[in-house]
Amino acid sequence: MKVDLNSDLGESFGAYTIGMDKEVIPLVTSANIACGFHAGDPAVMQKTIALAHENRIGLGAHPGYPDLVGFGRRTMAVSPKDVYAMVVYQVGALAAFAKAAGGRLQHVKPHGAMYNMAAKDAALAEAIAQAVYDVDKDLILFAQPGTESIKAAEKIGLLTAAEVFADRSYQEDGTLTPRSKPGAMITDEDASIAQVLSMVLDHKVTCLSGKVIPIKADSICVHGDGPKALLFVQKIRKALAEKGVEIAPAGSFLR
Amino acid sequence: MKVDLNSDLGESFGAYTIGMDKEVIPLVTSANIACGFHAGDPAVMQKTIALAHENRIGLGAHPGYPDLVGFGRRTMAVSPKDVYAMVVYQVGALAAFAKAAGGRLQHVKPHGAMYNMAAKDAALAEAIAQAVYDVDKDLILFAQPGTESIKAAEKIGLLTAAEVFADRSYQEDGTLTPRSKPGAMITDEDASIAQVLSMVLDHKVTCLSGKVIPIKADSICVHGDGPKALLFVQKIRKALAEKGVEIAPAGSFLR
Amino acid sequence: MKVDLNSDLGESFGAYTIGMDKEVIPLVTSANIACGFHAGDPAVMQKTIALAHENRIGLGAHPGYPDLVGFGRRTMAVSPKDVYAMVVYQVGALAAFAKAAGGRLQHVKPHGAMYNMAAKDAALAEAIAQAVYDVDKDLILFAQPGTESIKAAEKIGLLTAAEVFADRSYQEDGTLTPRSKPGAMITDEDASIAQVLSMVLDHKVTCLSGKVIPIKADSICVHGDGPKALLFVQKIRKALAEKGVEIAPAGSFLR
Amino acid sequence: MKVDLNSDLGESFGAYTIGMDKEVIPLVTSANIACGFHAGDPAVMQKTIALAHENRIGLGAHPGYPDLVGFGRRTMAVSPKDVYAMVVYQVGALAAFAKAAGGRLQHVKPHGAMYNMAAKDAALAEAIAQAVYDVDKDLILFAQPGTESIKAAEKIGLLTAAEVFADRSYQEDGTLTPRSKPGAMITDEDASIAQVLSMVLDHKVTCLSGKVIPIKADSICVHGDGPKALLFVQKIRKALAEKGVEIAPAGSFLR
Repeated sequence: MKVDLNSDLGESFGAYTIGMDKEVIPLVTSANIACGFHAGDPAVMQKTIALAHENRIGLGAHPGYPDLVGFGRRTMAVSPKDVYAMVVYQVGALAAFAKAAGGRLQHVKPHGAMYNMAAKDAALAEAIAQAVYDVDKDLILFAQPGTESIKAAEKIGLLTAAEVFADRSYQEDGTLTPRSKPGAMITDEDASIAQVLSMVLDHKVTCLSGKVIPIKADSICVHGDGPKALLFVQKIRKALAEKGVEIAPAGSFLR
Repeated sequence: MKVDLNSDLGESFGAYTIGMDKEVIPLVTSANIACGFHAGDPAVMQKTIALAHENRIGLGAHPGYPDLVGFGRRTMAVSPKDVYAMVVYQVGALAAFAKAAGGRLQHVKPHGAMYNMAAKDAALAEAIAQAVYDVDKDLILFAQPGTESIKAAEKIGLLTAAEVFADRSYQEDGTLTPRSKPGAMITDEDASIAQVLSMVLDHKVTCLSGKVIPIKADSICVHGDGPKALLFVQKIRKALAEKGVEIAPAGSFLR
Repeated sequence: MKVDLNSDLGESFGAYTIGMDKEVIPLVTSANIACGFHAGDPAVMQKTIALAHENRIGLGAHPGYPDLVGFGRRTMAVSPKDVYAMVVYQVGALAAFAKAAGGRLQHVKPHGAMYNMAAKDAALAEAIAQAVYDVDKDLILFAQPGTESIKAAEKIGLLTAAEVFADRSYQEDGTLTPRSKPGAMITDEDASIAQVLSMVLDHKVTCLSGKVIPIKADSICVHGDGPKALLFVQKIRKALAEKGVEIAPAGSFLR
Repeated sequence: MKVDLNSDLGESFGAYTIGMDKEVIPLVTSANIACGFHAGDPAVMQKTIALAHENRIGLGAHPGYPDLVGFGRRTMAVSPKDVYAMVVYQVGALAAFAKAAGGRLQHVKPHGAMYNMAAKDAALAEAIAQAVYDVDKDLILFAQPGTESIKAAEKIGLLTAAEVFADRSYQEDGTLTPRSKPGAMITDEDASIAQVLSMVLDHKVTCLSGKVIPIKADSICVHGDGPKALLFVQKIRKALAEKGVEIAPAGSFLR
């Protein structure tokens, strides 16, 4: 049994630093690297690709909306046509750094508002899947199970990795509880780890309501934005290892 | 005998239009397409690649400095390391559009201040050549003959295309007369065409001083920023044809 | 009887030109000048303020969302707090150019998606009105009659100018027919002029449905983006003059 | 005897944080607040102005080049005309936040490459001084003594504050030793404090060469980018207090 751990990386920009990339990269197996639109710049991308490639983890593009000041988190009324072009652009730019470093991209995971909008909007999801496919049809699309993003990717023939969250509670329809609602975040670490183990080992998750629903879990999204977050990633790694689950890049077991 | 005609294209941005790309593309054989830093945006890049690819002309990246308001024309104290990263980024982004359209990049021609600074600065020239090589070692670098750009590209093993100008006068050292000096621009069309024919047929150019110097001419840079410019390109085409010179993409005869 | 003619100006950016500002400015009485977020740059703002001030028309800020590639037309999920800050910033920047030129701002008219969102969203409308008031409580807010924008401005004590459109049809609730619906645009020039005269002279407009509703009309929005548009502005001016309506800056008759 | 302590503040941007503004502001008497070009954004500007105003310190604009990724530190070939417009824009934007908070700007201190280029280039210095004067002729320009910036400001009739540095060594001509040369930085805290006391009390500084030269010192530039820097500011404050020097905003004793 195998599972991937992915983290958003390369989010620094110019003189600005976000994240503890050096510390996180050895703990995860897939890197979602910002591509200069919502975060990241060419020098940061080069450095992050180098670091991730040295650590032999899966290299992934993390394209976002052109909204640096909003960190790509603000919903924008972008057309499917525009999203297609911005995904081709960003994935292409990051793929070039991967190639220059002697590597190759493994996956694409859209960021923030783009990720969330595509989950529910079939036209956006199809534009993203088409863009990824057109740049490199061997790329894996990371998205939440059950979303339009997964459907669009499967329809076009892209491999997908079902992404799950350790620190967010689920609703009965398989979507995350919105952050605005009570219980959205799972703050108890043991509860988080129990949720991860249930999703990975039993393909099930206990919703906020108490109901148990089936869920697919190929990759667990983890954060590295502080010492506490890093410790938690180590706990997840330990808990999975104790259950005999191997942590490996999605591309190594999904293909 | 063959020569290439190249033009800067895809310089529109969002609601803003620059250039008459539809009219120019059928008249030239290589397109230098802006990559979103000094001009261009993802949607414009996609559209320009499609148009150029349909017309079977050479697809080229035209990377520039991150200075949209200055159109990449302002000298900036960028480090070779930063230039390397910004070239990998921009060439990679455009290459992805070429691939998505079923094509492939033929060349890279840096824009504006990047082009001018690299001509004289060996460290910048080497950073650019290395970036182009690392993204795709089969790309051709377009640069003025005799510059550090050409030397750096040859040193690393990149093919180069010697670029000449129809409407600019030359100095005895083979460089262009600076625009700030009298006689920098050749405004007489017949004189321009005579200069082009001399460069292409005899590999010679008569300098502003009257001295004749040798020059290599693989590609002629032409402009398409107005009806008059378009007519002039047609005159160059006619004059070359009358002398039996075939106009073809650089990649078709340099390799 | 007096009415104002306003136009969006100063939308050029760097090497990019939009609009025929030199030709429009003598035909209108209020200038909505872009402030560098969705269009415009500092040099363009300086030049546009100078031209408008020389022509003694009302100087106005035209703040927009930070979305140059989308020209500020894309809906964005910005918070009222962020809108407040972006309006203070942009109005302040333009006010400084007005002061440097020996003038003073007359009004503020939000642009594109900001204008449209504020019309319906009380929290955004209040943030904008507060920002305008805090920068200069003598500024006039331009907005469509009946909107949240007008209500918020009146509540805080700002003067307002009711803006109407010559080339757009109205619905029975006083809002514009959405562009996506048939009949949204009035393409017949005589019908446009009849609508303008009805709104200005009789404070009434005939809706798309045929129903006649009351409407307030302090300022008519006109376009100057082509020779045809300019001719149409001249026709409106002539029609108003024939009816004895004086065309003057909103600030000259609303205060 | 009085002296001002100034610090660069408000350099955060969107999700990115730079500096410990809350801790620094109570320790200094003048704030140089970034204006959105090289750092800062509207929300950060609003917040920083509020914090500085509450602490009753001098509010200052810190305009820079439009180079966020380079943090305004890269030399750019900008024209005096462009610098004029970008200074009017940025000072105007910040002045609006000051006014909205019930305050008023005290000074302007250009940032990074703009500060350094203007020191030596009379045309740029005059463009900056003119821009500051045109926005508000009561503003004080902060610049190094002996520079073109000071000359241009005095020529036009602006008040100036001579800025000195605690942690940089001086050359015999009164300029700072370039960072590329050995001995540029004064790393010994006692030596730094001795230099500050000498400049403030005796109007003299001992150059790197050992020669003693006269220097004017109205405001000392201090940094707040880490706990160590904060401790050092407290040491400077203590050393000045022990010598009976009052620390106060430049505007309170220069006018």
